[in-house]
Amino acid sequence: MENKNITIKMVLSAWNNGQEKINKLLGSSDEELLMPVAEGRNKVSWIIGHMAAVNDSMFTILGLGNKVNTELYDHFSNQSKDNKAPDLVTIRNYWKDTSSELTKKINSIKEEEWFERHMSVSPEDFIKEPHRNKLNVVFTRIMHVQHHYGQIALTLTTNK
Amino acid sequence: MENKNITIKMVLSAWNNGQEKINKLLGSSDEELLMPVAEGRNKVSWIIGHMAAVNDSMFTILGLGNKVNTELYDHFSNQSKDNKAPDLVTIRNYWKDTSSELTKKINSIKEEEWFERHMSVSPEDFIKEPHRNKLNVVFTRIMHVQHHYGQIALTLTTNK
Repeated sequence: MENKNITIKMVLSAWNNGQEKINKLLGSSDEELLMPVAEGRNKVSWIIGHMAAVNDSMFTILGLGNKVNTELYDHFSNQSKDNKAPDLVTIRNYWKDTSSELTKKINSIKEEEWFERHMSVSPEDFIKEPHRNKLNVVFTRIMHVQHHYGQIALTLTTNK
Repeated sequence: MENKNITIKMVLSAWNNGQEKINKLLGSSDEELLMPVAEGRNKVSWIIGHMAAVNDSMFTILGLGNKVNTELYDHFSNQSKDNKAPDLVTIRNYWKDTSSELTKKINSIKEEEWFERHMSVSPEDFIKEPHRNKLNVVFTRIMHVQHHYGQIALTLTTNK
């Protein structure tokens, strides 16, 4: 197997694992999802909505089409709205819809396309900074999911 | 720039950023480092020691030489020892020593070597699973650091 191909597989495998971990969290009880990750901080459910919004932002950045839900995207891109969050069914579905649609599209990106520029970088800047490619977008978002997963896992296991 | 080369740069850049984030945490006060990340859970200082031990385990896995400190490695590989942890100076230094030594060696690994097998996989298994290379070790450890960084950052910002 060619080395470049292996790298794409590594990143895709980490992407799929990360999304799967959050999918499993959706099976937590409503009570658990409504717990704050620390005293006075965001609820688990808000963080799931926030991660869904980040997923949703990736369609345009990767040139994969439109957002799944612009209204929910706007909502969860604004930290101050935590106190009037949508219900848990809506949040769970927003995650499921963005994750499944995005994961399907990400897994079908062709090998060469991964190293093309993403849509938030201009062609001129891309010449100077060729690491700002589509693979790098997915790579940084995997770390974002892991960052929050660490917080949520701690919250859910501490309060059992 | 060749695509494979870009991927290595992406991973190295994420490695360096992750280590730098933890370096900055060492500037927290002793009081902050002794806070538990959640009620009844490990202290921030323990998690830093744990991450230093994971760094220390990487020398052998990547074929880069011996551990920096086998005694501290053993200590922080055993969760039950949190109640008799070394002092904070020792923990801070253990992180600094493993991180700086490992980061120096990692940044000098040659391009082709990154796609060689790591030392915890046999040559036979590597033929079947060529993604179990050195780059993948660093990649998974970056996510490990991010996982804990998310927890520690939450703890330190919540209790300010």
